Amino acid sequence: MQSTEVDLYPSRVADRAQITCRRDPVLHDEMAARAMGPLDGRQLAAYLRDGFVPLEDLFSADEVRALQAQLDDDLRRAAPSSAPEVVREPGGEAVRSIFAVHRAGAWKRLAEDPRLRDAARQVLGGEVYVHQSRINFKPGFEGKAFYWHSDFETWHVEDGMPRMRAVSFSVLLDDNHTYNGPLMLVPGSHEHYVACVGKTPDDHYQQSLRRQEYGVPDPASLTRLCREGGIATPTGRAGSVLMFECNTMHGSGSNISPYARRNVFLVYNSVDNALRQPFGGTRPRPECIATREGIPR
Amino acid sequence: MQSTEVDLYPSRVADRAQITCRRDPVLHDEMAARAMGPLDGRQLAAYLRDGFVPLEDLFSADEVRALQAQLDDDLRRAAPSSAPEVVREPGGEAVRSIFAVHRAGAWKRLAEDPRLRDAARQVLGGEVYVHQSRINFKPGFEGKAFYWHSDFETWHVEDGMPRMRAVSFSVLLDDNHTYNGPLMLVPGSHEHYVACVGKTPDDHYQQSLRRQEYGVPDPASLTRLCREGGIATPTGRAGSVLMFECNTMHGSGSNISPYARRNVFLVYNSVDNALRQPFGGTRPRPECIATREGIPR
Repeated sequence: MQSTEVDLYPSRVADRAQITCRRDPVLHDEMAARAMGPLDGRQLAAYLRDGFVPLEDLFSADEVRALQAQLDDDLRRAAPSSAPEVVREPGGEAVRSIFAVHRAGAWKRLAEDPRLRDAARQVLGGEVYVHQSRINFKPGFEGKAFYWHSDFETWHVEDGMPRMRAVSFSVLLDDNHTYNGPLMLVPGSHEHYVACVGKTPDDHYQQSLRRQEYGVPDPASLTRLCREGGIATPTGRAGSVLMFECNTMHGSGSNISPYARRNVFLVYNSVDNALRQPFGGTRPRPECIATREGIPR
Repeated sequence: MQSTEVDLYPSRVADRAQITCRRDPVLHDEMAARAMGPLDGRQLAAYLRDGFVPLEDLFSADEVRALQAQLDDDLRRAAPSSAPEVVREPGGEAVRSIFAVHRAGAWKRLAEDPRLRDAARQVLGGEVYVHQSRINFKPGFEGKAFYWHSDFETWHVEDGMPRMRAVSFSVLLDDNHTYNGPLMLVPGSHEHYVACVGKTPDDHYQQSLRRQEYGVPDPASLTRLCREGGIATPTGRAGSVLMFECNTMHGSGSNISPYARRNVFLVYNSVDNALRQPFGGTRPRPECIATREGIPR
């Protein structure tokens, strides 16, 4: 399929970086979005302008406690596991992430929760499915940085997501402070596509989920985006949610504080934007990283 | 000398960590301090309570520009240098720090500036000298974390500083934001001494200035200090100064932002607190790391 489809967002093909324009709307059916909930006009405007919107205290303290308990259980089970869903910290054995948690139990219910799913439907203009889910642990004292990236760039090149029509939710399960490695986002960066340098090797994801080496934006492009938009570090209590567009440039610093920054990350994609063959020409990544099966039509 | 002197602050000798009380005053001559300048009563109270005090906009924009130009010159000269004063980033060749910059030129004048030196005299109760100085570069995109530490613990064990009677100034030469790896300090931690685990090998400093392995506080002690005092991340414009007591627990996260966080770090010690043999029993570190010569009496 790759050969017959125009690649609107080429990346990792040229020997120098390039910033091009976004070619997709941010609100995919703006009229319908404005008539729907759960996001109000102010929230839609922030999402449209910045590429993200913080949803404060979306889950109650009781809900947070139940999710934290589930997370502790999952971590205990994951620690000795060699399943492909379990990704470890670079240079260590500590669990960094557990993927594809939305398939069952509390995380499945969370992924079906209208506070998230209907907000995704609202901005993506129609029916959605979970493209990726994971728990990120970001432990205290030794939590490592995630370097800057656009999720879409990776999903396009490595997973074959054709268009910018996906949205992510980071459900905070710990209080996020400025000092425990919170998510940093570049407001307005979702309007630009940073094509990266370097060709991706096959099965690169086994390393890249631990430490990114390809699909890394260049310093000049990052500097330009940050000069134009600044850097936002939304903080918030556990139970708050950060909703961000698939192409918003983001990253996070290390966490030497004693306080973990655990979160559940859920990505919804439009059913009209299902994955093709990866645009980078590599083998598709496993189902636990990028959903291909059972997509509702 | 080591054998005849009681060690008030033993560390790296037991096989488990311990928190003991500070045995020295924070203001070494409180009556005189309150009658002197340049710090006013509010600033002295903050320093006494928290172990640090931010001095906003202490240097003018013109002064900052001149110091930045000097710093750029120094970096150019340091890059190819194999002098012991030049320390590189862990796992790389980028210059992390240049030591002993107070010996000449603009940094010598800075070290003699009454805005710093008189503030040191005021809290240390008498005449002072520069125990250590350095430029820290903390570059954008790739600036690495400095893990939590009390400077005094290192200076006591590895340099033979007998008492807590020294004070540090970090002169900011870039704007410090929450997102470019600013200094994090634990308010009130200067009142506690965290004895660390593990014996220090000789000539350990060549590695430790790049990445700390000994003199590292344990997670339980850090958690207790942070629970009691919180974590402060003072931000400020270039030209602002952070003044902090030698035993205040501090560290900084990584810096993936495009913005460097360069600063000049000057430490004054009381002339009555001159270095002995290192209390850890190792060879003294070089003169460029810890001043032993030419101390006024």
